[in-house]
Amino acid sequence: MLFFSSSQYGILWLMDLLPLDHQGEAPLYRQLFDQIAGQIRSGRMARGERLPATRELAGLLGLNRATISAAYEMLETGGLIAGHVGRGSFVTGSAAAPATASRGFDWRPLLGRNGSPVTVAPLSGKDLISFVASRPSDALFPLDEFRAACRAVLERSDLAEILQLGSPAGYEPLRRHLLEESRRQGLAMPGDDLIVTNGCQQALDLIGRVLLAPGDRVAIEDPVYAGLKNVLAGMGAQLAGVPVGADGIDMAQLRRLLDREPPRFVVITSNFQNPTGATLPLASRLGLLEAAHAAGVPVVENDPYCDLRYLGEAVPAVKQLDQRGGTVLLRSFSKVSFPGLRVGWALGPKPLIDRMRQAKEACDLHTDQLSQAVLLEFVESGRLETHRGRVLAAGAERLAATLAACREFLPAGSAWTRPEGGMNLWVRLAPPLDAGDVLASAQSHGVAFLPGRYFEVSRRDAGALRLSFAGLTPEKIRKGLEILGRVIAEEWERASEDREPAAAMV
Amino acid sequence: MLFFSSSQYGILWLMDLLPLDHQGEAPLYRQLFDQIAGQIRSGRMARGERLPATRELAGLLGLNRATISAAYEMLETGGLIAGHVGRGSFVTGSAAAPATASRGFDWRPLLGRNGSPVTVAPLSGKDLISFVASRPSDALFPLDEFRAACRAVLERSDLAEILQLGSPAGYEPLRRHLLEESRRQGLAMPGDDLIVTNGCQQALDLIGRVLLAPGDRVAIEDPVYAGLKNVLAGMGAQLAGVPVGADGIDMAQLRRLLDREPPRFVVITSNFQNPTGATLPLASRLGLLEAAHAAGVPVVENDPYCDLRYLGEAVPAVKQLDQRGGTVLLRSFSKVSFPGLRVGWALGPKPLIDRMRQAKEACDLHTDQLSQAVLLEFVESGRLETHRGRVLAAGAERLAATLAACREFLPAGSAWTRPEGGMNLWVRLAPPLDAGDVLASAQSHGVAFLPGRYFEVSRRDAGALRLSFAGLTPEKIRKGLEILGRVIAEEWERASEDREPAAAMV
Repeated sequence: MLFFSSSQYGILWLMDLLPLDHQGEAPLYRQLFDQIAGQIRSGRMARGERLPATRELAGLLGLNRATISAAYEMLETGGLIAGHVGRGSFVTGSAAAPATASRGFDWRPLLGRNGSPVTVAPLSGKDLISFVASRPSDALFPLDEFRAACRAVLERSDLAEILQLGSPAGYEPLRRHLLEESRRQGLAMPGDDLIVTNGCQQALDLIGRVLLAPGDRVAIEDPVYAGLKNVLAGMGAQLAGVPVGADGIDMAQLRRLLDREPPRFVVITSNFQNPTGATLPLASRLGLLEAAHAAGVPVVENDPYCDLRYLGEAVPAVKQLDQRGGTVLLRSFSKVSFPGLRVGWALGPKPLIDRMRQAKEACDLHTDQLSQAVLLEFVESGRLETHRGRVLAAGAERLAATLAACREFLPAGSAWTRPEGGMNLWVRLAPPLDAGDVLASAQSHGVAFLPGRYFEVSRRDAGALRLSFAGLTPEKIRKGLEILGRVIAEEWERASEDREPAAAMV
Repeated sequence: MLFFSSSQYGILWLMDLLPLDHQGEAPLYRQLFDQIAGQIRSGRMARGERLPATRELAGLLGLNRATISAAYEMLETGGLIAGHVGRGSFVTGSAAAPATASRGFDWRPLLGRNGSPVTVAPLSGKDLISFVASRPSDALFPLDEFRAACRAVLERSDLAEILQLGSPAGYEPLRRHLLEESRRQGLAMPGDDLIVTNGCQQALDLIGRVLLAPGDRVAIEDPVYAGLKNVLAGMGAQLAGVPVGADGIDMAQLRRLLDREPPRFVVITSNFQNPTGATLPLASRLGLLEAAHAAGVPVVENDPYCDLRYLGEAVPAVKQLDQRGGTVLLRSFSKVSFPGLRVGWALGPKPLIDRMRQAKEACDLHTDQLSQAVLLEFVESGRLETHRGRVLAAGAERLAATLAACREFLPAGSAWTRPEGGMNLWVRLAPPLDAGDVLASAQSHGVAFLPGRYFEVSRRDAGALRLSFAGLTPEKIRKGLEILGRVIAEEWERASEDREPAAAMV
């Protein structure tokens, strides 16, 4: 028997098993359990030692196999052995186990050091009207078109190559397409290169890895997308928030910051900023470049929403305006197509992209190749452009519905931005309203959104909230804002009442 | 005309254009170019200003459209304007541009700080017999089975959900499957949780992010997979290498390290270690757990090769033997199926996995969902197990061919490991041979491998090299080693000759 030929797993303990009492009160499996447990607890059977298969032990001891199985089950339940399908059971408890099991490994002191990011409590429910997520509506996904693109990739002669280990720079046919397209659009300078990333999020992460040391200052918009705060804060960066209004970042403050305490880099969301929806005007883009260049500070242009302009005229990218090569541009397929496929890219000066590629290789080797190939097919077949047309029409309608419903339902004193694209709109409630209080009440009425605190960098803005409208139909948007308007009005009355006694106390 | 209605883009400069000389020597497009370039260089046309469309300017100036296009092309070539398809052309040069263009943004001081990892020079060529990459053979990929799994996913009713933004913990049906399978195999403890990652590489990265601060010591095997060194070194970790021999890590040295200078964590590759191919024996696994627990140090069990055992009996995972919850286990689909799909997972105590999930969200939001869904289908349909059978048969054959060819062709004085699985075998050449010198010569004869220095942590091992055999047929393996044996013998003679005169000098 294989069991006896293995010298690695001792079976001497078998000799110490006493004959079982077939007439005794205790069932045989219980007697067997007690004896084996005793062997394990005494240390005679060592941790890691393999037990005979139930069939073998049944044969050796002249017992029914079910008896052995029952005893093993009790041992397993007691944490003394562990079964591994196809390999048998092993001793996992030990002489010391009963005493130490209760003082298991304590991870807390190890985990306490690196700070935990702000996370969003899950908000869900069938009837909930959720303005929470800045993502496209999956009802608009062109599933048949997607299937067709997948099938085309499956029929390709280089399918095996797609499934093989790839390059940290990206699936070469996609990378080449994106770089050529960037050149065609006047975005790429002669010395530029491009790397495919897992969406803009990973591009931000790679830039942080390459450029940041703990304690470095980074200038970002305030309020800003929480994922941007979290990734930089997680690297120990000091975040310097520069206020964003309806017209984009406050250039006077940014200039002062660049001049007096130059950060390691600036991150700017040029189009339809998350959460405000603001687009940076041309004059600010040029001003930003002048100030950043004067300070020797590079610009990270985070631009996941650029393809989603519903109104007005496009403004040239900061990257395009920068002839000095101090800007890196981040874009993505995820907002305009399928967020579940994690494919974005970074375009910038070769020395930076080279280092990002090394960091990418250290992070996760390369971006998933199947999705890269499918998205390239989706683009080259013209399906993305067709889909984009539908997304733009729906987005325009949804944005208009949101703005109209804000006008109709939000109480006097409320203010909101008027984005020209993207997925988000920023609402500021009349003081002293707190968006967190409003959220609690709104949720009980079936409406959810994210309060401003999720996006705060250095300024508190308790009365602000983000409405993400792209995932909701105009009907839902209207109904959601009707409810929200009512809740806000109620909260405002409550807040006013609360103030009365306080005033009397003064 | 839209052009005139835009107040954002001034056109006052148009008024300053002098009438062109239709009889002059200089062609009209050249005259126009000179005038517009002058406007830009003088600053009268500001950077970012939009130029009229060629058709519009042709109409305004009473010129042929081709003349305007030619002038614009010269301006673009000169870096003064940039075209953007569908949006027109913009001024990108400026008054200061000619002077500053040559002193573009200097990235070098910013990039110099964070160290650059060791990278492998590209080795390729049609006839090259390459032992370089530790990856499966794509000739073995079951493409029809893969297509069938993809098509099944495309027909699923939750396809839209797969394409939508997902969870940082992973595609829930896959995550649940992996957790249940881990429980069934006795790997998961009651308090354990699981996160899907972009392969084992990202799991290592996330663990580093959660547990490490710059300067922290981490104990790793020496030699070790370069990707493991690079990701930890990139975070500023101090790497303490513990020698690995044919029987796995040197336990006496590891114990001493844990006892005297406890690292932040230990990373161990329990099965078919890369690059040595060594498997950690049961006694060492238990000893490691004892020593790590005594020192309060967690264990990271890096186990991407576990499914690729060709010979001998499986040893229980360190994770399975650890009843105290101080171990996190990393596994992956990439070695046993398709490396181009980046899907692996980490199984460990919930507090650690919770923090890894937060870090994952900051890194790249979540792992690509299409590949997660396709791999789950590939597993649940039984296709992975069938494919694994073929991979094991091919692997056993390739390993045997490698060992036989080493015996037959490597010169006396060479030594090599005898792995029981995986993709790699470690060869040590007779002193004073240097594997780097041998590589240079081998490449000129059409054979490539990675010299030991790519895997070094703290010990130099100039005579060592890695042979990755999984991607080559037995015929290629035999031919490659025949060439390599000859090259080594030649290098040895050369090295011996080199020593003669040196000896005479003493």
